[in-house]
Amino acid sequence: MSAVRMLVAAALLGVSTSAVAQSDVARVIDEGMNRSQVMSTAHELVDGIGARLSNSTSMRRAEDWAVAKMQGYGLSNVRREGFEFGRGWDLVNSEVRMISPRPIKLTAIPVAWTPPTNGVLRAPIVIAPISERRHFDAYRGKLNGKIVLISLPGDGSEPTDPYFRRHDDAALKKLDEYRQPQHDEDSLEERLKRQKYAADLDQFLASEGALAWARISYRDGKLVHGAGYTYQVGMTPKLPGIEIAAEDYRRLARLAKSGDAPVLEVQSDVRFVDSDTKAYNIIGEIPGSDPKAGYVMAGAHFDSWAAGDGAVDNGAGSVVVLEAARILRTLGVRPKRTIRFALWGAEEQGLLGSLAYIDRHIATRPVPANAAADQYTSYWREGWPVQPRQGYGQLKAYFNMDNGSGKLRGVYAEGNHAAVPLLKEWMNPFASMGATAVVAAPTGGTDHVYMQSVGVPGFQFVQDPLDYGARLHHTNIDTFDHLKAADLRQASVVMAGMLLAAANSDKELPRPPLPSKPLPTDPFKYDYPKDR
Amino acid sequence: MSAVRMLVAAALLGVSTSAVAQSDVARVIDEGMNRSQVMSTAHELVDGIGARLSNSTSMRRAEDWAVAKMQGYGLSNVRREGFEFGRGWDLVNSEVRMISPRPIKLTAIPVAWTPPTNGVLRAPIVIAPISERRHFDAYRGKLNGKIVLISLPGDGSEPTDPYFRRHDDAALKKLDEYRQPQHDEDSLEERLKRQKYAADLDQFLASEGALAWARISYRDGKLVHGAGYTYQVGMTPKLPGIEIAAEDYRRLARLAKSGDAPVLEVQSDVRFVDSDTKAYNIIGEIPGSDPKAGYVMAGAHFDSWAAGDGAVDNGAGSVVVLEAARILRTLGVRPKRTIRFALWGAEEQGLLGSLAYIDRHIATRPVPANAAADQYTSYWREGWPVQPRQGYGQLKAYFNMDNGSGKLRGVYAEGNHAAVPLLKEWMNPFASMGATAVVAAPTGGTDHVYMQSVGVPGFQFVQDPLDYGARLHHTNIDTFDHLKAADLRQASVVMAGMLLAAANSDKELPRPPLPSKPLPTDPFKYDYPKDR
Repeated sequence: MSAVRMLVAAALLGVSTSAVAQSDVARVIDEGMNRSQVMSTAHELVDGIGARLSNSTSMRRAEDWAVAKMQGYGLSNVRREGFEFGRGWDLVNSEVRMISPRPIKLTAIPVAWTPPTNGVLRAPIVIAPISERRHFDAYRGKLNGKIVLISLPGDGSEPTDPYFRRHDDAALKKLDEYRQPQHDEDSLEERLKRQKYAADLDQFLASEGALAWARISYRDGKLVHGAGYTYQVGMTPKLPGIEIAAEDYRRLARLAKSGDAPVLEVQSDVRFVDSDTKAYNIIGEIPGSDPKAGYVMAGAHFDSWAAGDGAVDNGAGSVVVLEAARILRTLGVRPKRTIRFALWGAEEQGLLGSLAYIDRHIATRPVPANAAADQYTSYWREGWPVQPRQGYGQLKAYFNMDNGSGKLRGVYAEGNHAAVPLLKEWMNPFASMGATAVVAAPTGGTDHVYMQSVGVPGFQFVQDPLDYGARLHHTNIDTFDHLKAADLRQASVVMAGMLLAAANSDKELPRPPLPSKPLPTDPFKYDYPKDR
Repeated sequence: MSAVRMLVAAALLGVSTSAVAQSDVARVIDEGMNRSQVMSTAHELVDGIGARLSNSTSMRRAEDWAVAKMQGYGLSNVRREGFEFGRGWDLVNSEVRMISPRPIKLTAIPVAWTPPTNGVLRAPIVIAPISERRHFDAYRGKLNGKIVLISLPGDGSEPTDPYFRRHDDAALKKLDEYRQPQHDEDSLEERLKRQKYAADLDQFLASEGALAWARISYRDGKLVHGAGYTYQVGMTPKLPGIEIAAEDYRRLARLAKSGDAPVLEVQSDVRFVDSDTKAYNIIGEIPGSDPKAGYVMAGAHFDSWAAGDGAVDNGAGSVVVLEAARILRTLGVRPKRTIRFALWGAEEQGLLGSLAYIDRHIATRPVPANAAADQYTSYWREGWPVQPRQGYGQLKAYFNMDNGSGKLRGVYAEGNHAAVPLLKEWMNPFASMGATAVVAAPTGGTDHVYMQSVGVPGFQFVQDPLDYGARLHHTNIDTFDHLKAADLRQASVVMAGMLLAAANSDKELPRPPLPSKPLPTDPFKYDYPKDR
């Protein structure tokens, strides 16, 4: 019997090889590369369930699925942590057609959380570019009975950059430069006023007798998005709103300029879901052996917009978090620190899930008791001082993934320069897979941001950009086709490896100082009065 | 009074400045650049009338419009030259939805000249990749009551080349290389058999009890095309056919692989138009002063597919031909040779309009009297000898435009090397506008091809590619947005200038030899038997 046959026989007989010391990193790579489930998990979520707008029916289905998935992997303390959000909204169907001067079907999507048309709404359009309150006056008396096209039409695009690309060494190097933090110079009052603009516009249009409004898609090529933010209970607007594909919108605008106003038929079949106004974070963990050692965590937002299937934003991050959990559970690791896995809710409406987690477990900031529901986040961001909660010191490291399907090329140190050497050490084994860059640059716009804002070590992964920003982000082609299997396998392995290293490390990541109110970057700056 | 004021006053008084010799080229450039109408003409055609599928209702509207346009410019002998084509087909509306395992609207388009569903057709899909007759057997007995998805799903794309680009010097230089003509090695019999494949597939699917078929779009990003070729009277297929966007098609295929077959609702609301089975070329001209000097001609196909508005393919070429006519008529030129302007019909179904023109006016080729309607073109291409008609020598130069909205960078000499010096001479004044390249390379696929095939000097312009091939050609985003105004102004000026130079030239373009049956390029080649 050959040596190979002996080994095979031993394996078949269930003979344990655990007497031979195996590297954790090697086992993670083996499990994550040779027995990956990341694409079948993605298929279940992205193809099988699809879009996951916060509090929609399909998001509820996805939450059940995620809980079952985590339980199936044998994670501990699998739970939903709810936080007040608002209404759900289901996009059932929609049709938009131009019927005059000639019949043609348009590509369009209802704007999230706008009301249904209740059947077919037939009306002429009027072009009324409005982007600020001061534009209202120009259109008074001209909107009655109309579908109001509020965007400037603009011109077609000339896409001279490739849609799909990967980071080269120069691009990675460029991320690794210290940047002076630029503090938002906007006053809280200005921000709150700007936030009320959507409601004011709706009020203006409704009071003028307009029947619906439409905006242009900000990408051409028949891509649409449909993002909208009027999700709070009691803040649902009066008028249906739709986003029209750029080519179709501009055709309407040209025809209105050269002849009689085109007539549209709009059918927006959408339904509000009010059975539960809470959104949820889905959390599970692998308990650590040392209860005093705290925990490390990886997370990704689980919600999406309604136009596509939420594949690269952020099915990708979600299934990588789940796959990292599966890999570590399959290997039966018993880390020193607890490893926690989080699927955040309501990221797309302002990082609300991770904010709720932080406020509950990590640190809070003062918000006036009478702040309206839609003002809470703005107040929280500006609330001083930061007040650590009891769990503040327990979170030792947080890794976030939310830049699409591209493989992990490194991690943003987010200005925490002191953390760079240890992050590099943890990442070292994955250099040959392309994960090499621990870069100084900060990133924004996703769920590590509020962790940064209270001074805990939260980091976003650097990913190959692929076509995430160019054509997928929030669009109707954010579908499974644009997930890259090899990238997601790599990401799962690197995430699992980083978590395990962080959970078992003798050293803890250096923590940034507790933030206090920053000074203006340019104290001598004058500005024009704002007319919003 | 200043000298400037005197000139202005003279102009206002209608004082003629014709005593001062004006360069024709300078006048063409002045009229075409400073008083261009090309974009408003394009708007009328592309936005106002839209898609122009051969013999469709909107194509009839477009033909009326073009005749009126030519007459309005004061062209002479404006006429429609009809040729037998087949049925018209109007795409009225269409809806395709997946209703199980979850409801989602799909992006899809009926395939041209397939029959309507007559209401909503609801049925499960079956994935049955079929591209040749020999695949039929594998699916016998499995298609009854199904919507048959006949394409292999494949994978998503990674667009690493920019969609939009212009020719640089190196690209133009590369076109200027002699290429050995590659003669089609396919036998006439093989071609005729391949052509019958669509009918055989329809017959097979119908006999198996399938309800409809669907194919995948060959571009991703929710672009669809809908090209189909069963336009002949008596050849309409039994089953409705649809093209589904790549992302949506692949989702269906994955869901069918992992679970129960998805159920679709397909509504294909299309109508056949049988009032006139002829298609038409629209022709007008500026008469020459010397009746014996023959004529020069510019042309572009006027028909389009049904998915978009037929903007870059080939509204662009059509409006440039019209604008060149307008410029020359506005200047009141009186050329030696007649200048003829042609808008060809039915190019998309096999260059049928230009072929009809050639056969009627230039040269004919023997076709068996019993050839079926759908075999005529194949026989004509292979018919020897070429038999010149009386008008053969009259056509001195033909210029074709059919590569989108990009400006003219030169002209393909199409292997007619002897013509290069004179073409260069005519193009010289437009070098600073980017039109410099008289290149040897041949091009195919449009209306100069059959002129070449009978040995008359027909040429296609070289154009900047822009995003024509990458995303616009035959797609649902072939719309006005993607026309480039500066490019179309330039093209109109260069086309008008080239026509005028050709019409007035003392020299005539050298003519290629009368073609005779070419020898195989590789007479020693063996091939596998074909199993189609």
